[in-house]
Amino acid sequence: MLRLSWMTSPEPLHDIAHLGSVELLTPQLEKSLWYFRDLLGMEVVQRTAAAAWLRGYGDYAASTLKLSQAPSPGVGGIAWRATSPAALERRAAALQEVGLGIGWTNGDFGRGRSFRFRDPDGHHMEIYFEEQRYEAAEGLRSALKNQPQKYTGRGVGVRRTDHLALLASDVATNRRFAQELLGFQLREQVVFDDGKNEIGSWMSPNAIHHQLAYVADVKGGHGRLHHFSLWVDNREDVLRAADILVENGVFIEAGPSKHNNSQGFYLYSYEPGGNRVEIYSGSYLVLAPDWRPVTWNERERGTGTYWGAALPESFIQYGTPDIAGEAQTPAPDLSIFY
Amino acid sequence: MLRLSWMTSPEPLHDIAHLGSVELLTPQLEKSLWYFRDLLGMEVVQRTAAAAWLRGYGDYAASTLKLSQAPSPGVGGIAWRATSPAALERRAAALQEVGLGIGWTNGDFGRGRSFRFRDPDGHHMEIYFEEQRYEAAEGLRSALKNQPQKYTGRGVGVRRTDHLALLASDVATNRRFAQELLGFQLREQVVFDDGKNEIGSWMSPNAIHHQLAYVADVKGGHGRLHHFSLWVDNREDVLRAADILVENGVFIEAGPSKHNNSQGFYLYSYEPGGNRVEIYSGSYLVLAPDWRPVTWNERERGTGTYWGAALPESFIQYGTPDIAGEAQTPAPDLSIFY
Amino acid sequence: MLRLSWMTSPEPLHDIAHLGSVELLTPQLEKSLWYFRDLLGMEVVQRTAAAAWLRGYGDYAASTLKLSQAPSPGVGGIAWRATSPAALERRAAALQEVGLGIGWTNGDFGRGRSFRFRDPDGHHMEIYFEEQRYEAAEGLRSALKNQPQKYTGRGVGVRRTDHLALLASDVATNRRFAQELLGFQLREQVVFDDGKNEIGSWMSPNAIHHQLAYVADVKGGHGRLHHFSLWVDNREDVLRAADILVENGVFIEAGPSKHNNSQGFYLYSYEPGGNRVEIYSGSYLVLAPDWRPVTWNERERGTGTYWGAALPESFIQYGTPDIAGEAQTPAPDLSIFY
Amino acid sequence: MLRLSWMTSPEPLHDIAHLGSVELLTPQLEKSLWYFRDLLGMEVVQRTAAAAWLRGYGDYAASTLKLSQAPSPGVGGIAWRATSPAALERRAAALQEVGLGIGWTNGDFGRGRSFRFRDPDGHHMEIYFEEQRYEAAEGLRSALKNQPQKYTGRGVGVRRTDHLALLASDVATNRRFAQELLGFQLREQVVFDDGKNEIGSWMSPNAIHHQLAYVADVKGGHGRLHHFSLWVDNREDVLRAADILVENGVFIEAGPSKHNNSQGFYLYSYEPGGNRVEIYSGSYLVLAPDWRPVTWNERERGTGTYWGAALPESFIQYGTPDIAGEAQTPAPDLSIFY
Repeated sequence: MLRLSWMTSPEPLHDIAHLGSVELLTPQLEKSLWYFRDLLGMEVVQRTAAAAWLRGYGDYAASTLKLSQAPSPGVGGIAWRATSPAALERRAAALQEVGLGIGWTNGDFGRGRSFRFRDPDGHHMEIYFEEQRYEAAEGLRSALKNQPQKYTGRGVGVRRTDHLALLASDVATNRRFAQELLGFQLREQVVFDDGKNEIGSWMSPNAIHHQLAYVADVKGGHGRLHHFSLWVDNREDVLRAADILVENGVFIEAGPSKHNNSQGFYLYSYEPGGNRVEIYSGSYLVLAPDWRPVTWNERERGTGTYWGAALPESFIQYGTPDIAGEAQTPAPDLSIFY
Repeated sequence: MLRLSWMTSPEPLHDIAHLGSVELLTPQLEKSLWYFRDLLGMEVVQRTAAAAWLRGYGDYAASTLKLSQAPSPGVGGIAWRATSPAALERRAAALQEVGLGIGWTNGDFGRGRSFRFRDPDGHHMEIYFEEQRYEAAEGLRSALKNQPQKYTGRGVGVRRTDHLALLASDVATNRRFAQELLGFQLREQVVFDDGKNEIGSWMSPNAIHHQLAYVADVKGGHGRLHHFSLWVDNREDVLRAADILVENGVFIEAGPSKHNNSQGFYLYSYEPGGNRVEIYSGSYLVLAPDWRPVTWNERERGTGTYWGAALPESFIQYGTPDIAGEAQTPAPDLSIFY
Repeated sequence: MLRLSWMTSPEPLHDIAHLGSVELLTPQLEKSLWYFRDLLGMEVVQRTAAAAWLRGYGDYAASTLKLSQAPSPGVGGIAWRATSPAALERRAAALQEVGLGIGWTNGDFGRGRSFRFRDPDGHHMEIYFEEQRYEAAEGLRSALKNQPQKYTGRGVGVRRTDHLALLASDVATNRRFAQELLGFQLREQVVFDDGKNEIGSWMSPNAIHHQLAYVADVKGGHGRLHHFSLWVDNREDVLRAADILVENGVFIEAGPSKHNNSQGFYLYSYEPGGNRVEIYSGSYLVLAPDWRPVTWNERERGTGTYWGAALPESFIQYGTPDIAGEAQTPAPDLSIFY
Repeated sequence: MLRLSWMTSPEPLHDIAHLGSVELLTPQLEKSLWYFRDLLGMEVVQRTAAAAWLRGYGDYAASTLKLSQAPSPGVGGIAWRATSPAALERRAAALQEVGLGIGWTNGDFGRGRSFRFRDPDGHHMEIYFEEQRYEAAEGLRSALKNQPQKYTGRGVGVRRTDHLALLASDVATNRRFAQELLGFQLREQVVFDDGKNEIGSWMSPNAIHHQLAYVADVKGGHGRLHHFSLWVDNREDVLRAADILVENGVFIEAGPSKHNNSQGFYLYSYEPGGNRVEIYSGSYLVLAPDWRPVTWNERERGTGTYWGAALPESFIQYGTPDIAGEAQTPAPDLSIFY
């Protein structure tokens, strides 16, 4: 009754440890701050006139989210932490070699020397190893010695950054970049038209199901953001988050509900600057060194949700910055990408 | 207000991917099966007269738990999956060199060539790379393409193996073995008597907080088990599990409640064979390549729980197989280890 | 800052204690049984060739759900328990007087002398006082002395009946009937067209938000069912139920999500016989003796859900038995009734 | 297999609708306010120098909790809402007749004409009918038309008052008083010594399992409080509350765990004034007009919890105001009553 298959695998690359920090651009810095600090319960650790650095209570780093005043919403620098100083050098050399490198910087708040580069679609990324560990001031110290910061009970109380979904005009190229240059493991894919049209790919450098996703930019843009995702420990926390968002007049685009792809329990809203933010739980860990990517075709994909909830058209059409024009290519009958 | 510290780290070893399978010995095989299959909701994938192989619905491997008929309860073979064939060879050579190696086998059900060895305390372990991926028969196929098996809704519905806690007469030696020979990262420790008495250490080869713990065997035994732990996705699942266990006459030793160490949400019961089993959720992932172990002394440790619940004396005194005699060394004022 | 208003109220009627039992008609008795027993986890307490009597683990009565083989799905007898023998006589006399009475019977399984009647729309109802208290056999006895039956851990594990929603061609008339003849308290209403078009009304004889709802039969039928609702204690149980239903091939029409009206956390599926069944939690208790009904107009009503989830057209168009023909009156822009 | 028993019942009294408001005395008014407002998330609706009036977000009345500065902690006035003006007069006359009446007042904040009286143990109570309905100011208006106030997301976010447990030197007398004079239905009892020693009784005027409990005052005091209990909708909310309390240095006496009696999911802490407060969910509704009280003897009672958690000695010995002296009568082997 049990059908068996044997796994084989080459030696995996292990140079990137995790997603370190994401910079969101916002034309409404103060309102965006209200969303992340007062509603989602994040802490502000540093402020300037044009930017704010924040963190979730469970993040061990000094800061994991940067909000920057900008004319349009979107994603700024995306920072990945290397597994060692040597790993940082190896990745910098490899990126330099393929022509995606930009160069070294001293690092943004909380991070040491960083190598900046671009992904093929034009998103700005960097790799670093040295990181400031967060040490809480008196009022924010946790009663738990293994928790970097007090759980304050304010608003949603997101624990940590989970992942990032980027729009890309050519998903396949960017996916291969992340696999080969960054060493990410491919976890799931949505591929339409008999395997010819790669709609989305979900990848990770660690056990978290995905820390980076590329999904098709149906408007043919470049360097755009689909969403940024923050973790809470239980599905009940996501339900409670929905109440808090609605009570505060925040528009909910979709959820809470459960994706089929990733099995993630999702809640999508737009922060006041316009960026799509997900509050997220569930999903599953991947520990297999030779994980076989799960691929979904049109029929298997269905609505992109598990229980049948429909995702709105905006979920495919809208990204930040928002750009004019209809979908370039006749969008396949993709109800959604995840 | 923000105090900073810079992290540094050598290149980490990355040869073990995850805990693969645990063998529990039971003098009551049929009753133990009832516990794991009917109450915890695991599936039986293979049977012989003297053994049964089981799995959680979310495990990707063919089997993750083996129950073996034996005169006394306890832990049998503990199998770790390597990250690659080369990693397997490297670990085998290293273990052979320090004299802990036993030799190669063809592997138990579902696994290929395996290298057997002992830890310093005498527990039987093995490393392997080749693994049978589970492929569900018709009635057990999930509606989710990325879920190896249907969630049946029977009983607790544990998702997967989480970790194993072993008793050891000399925690420090066994902890160093796991760090140096297996490459596990040390996550937390309980150390009493001004740093001189290592009561427990929690380690992992991946992002899961701990997949292996060594805690002091207060009776001076060898090769004994403290508990085997199975994961559910939400704390609510643990609460529901407690109802199911009590309704079926299973003795609950402690919980549901929350540890301070590991932040795990725990529920301990004894399966009918006598082994302590934990149903577990919560805790936190560790992604830092240079994680600084969190160390708890007597005062910080308190009762070992976060909200103040007491753990019973049995939690320190009882392991499997049970052995006669009082605590060898005057047990320190340790209320519990986790 | 606090605006105040004084409440006044006449003496409320208190003759009906609660919804006692609901009979569902099904053309697929065995498959319906599979749904309620194997998936929802109810117990069968009595069987004949053409009917089965079931119960939730928390129901104190012998049976609260009857499944009857019939050519078409729909709702059969709806039984209400009186608060006393005298209350039963009072209600029977009042119903007789207005011409809705049918007559006395000896009562169906588990109930004593019952007075049968019709509501204005033609649904069959009855009132009774004498009721068989459930006493569990050995294998179904709970470890909790105050729980009538063991929580078995099978499937969803619904606790008890919550409420019933009936379609009615004239909501206002049937609502007044329930208020005046049965003494139910009106809790919420959806009224469109500047108060002229009563789309739905939610009522109860006790603290449960509603045990009876009348919603507009857009096809102009009579005696039809919108849905029957079963309670679970936590929202997490509803999420888990959705997984169980999908894993077993049951179509989910809507949810899990949260209604604005009633604040109920809902999950709608069709049992194999065709009847819409809700798995339900949340909502709120009403204890005010002079509760002021909450009324929603088109704009306030929105999608009928709290977080923005859309309800499908079938939620308005489909009831059991299903009947031909389009909506009689041009259905107002009602996305849904609750 | 089904054993049956027939229920009979006299006409039940129905003059009290629900627990309306509880006054807690505190020697630390500002700190108590911090606990209820900042940690538990209640709103302050009125302030004077020596008192504050609060409410849960789901309470329909203007205020349900009054905090009053006093030399010692304890319970002040306990207000019950009548089901009608006539019911109020009936209860006042009955209480006057048995000599427990004190007299009429104009009512405290938010309530109209009130009849004050004492229970046999000396607790101060009152009955009223007229009540100010809460109408939220702009910033506190809910997006839900049927929710009196916004769910703010601050701290625990208790929804409403649930119940009150009073200490009494003679439980049986006070229990009969509540049954006969107030018309409460007896739900559960703990009776030791072969039925001769009534340790605790749980009662209610509505479907909530209990709104009033009397438990033995083992120190022989009078008019003392065991605990005041506030409701949250899900067990997960109680777990989250425990984190919030510990992170803010509040001592947790017991829980979160599940009682056997009432099936309540409990969390007990002391507010800074010294009164024991419970955060509560779960339990079960009672709708039977002829409910048969569930009685527990010593053996059935066990530890008073369902999963085996022990309750501390303080749970029996401590009430407010705290009084000197040991237990008067040799306390029976009662682990707890709550």
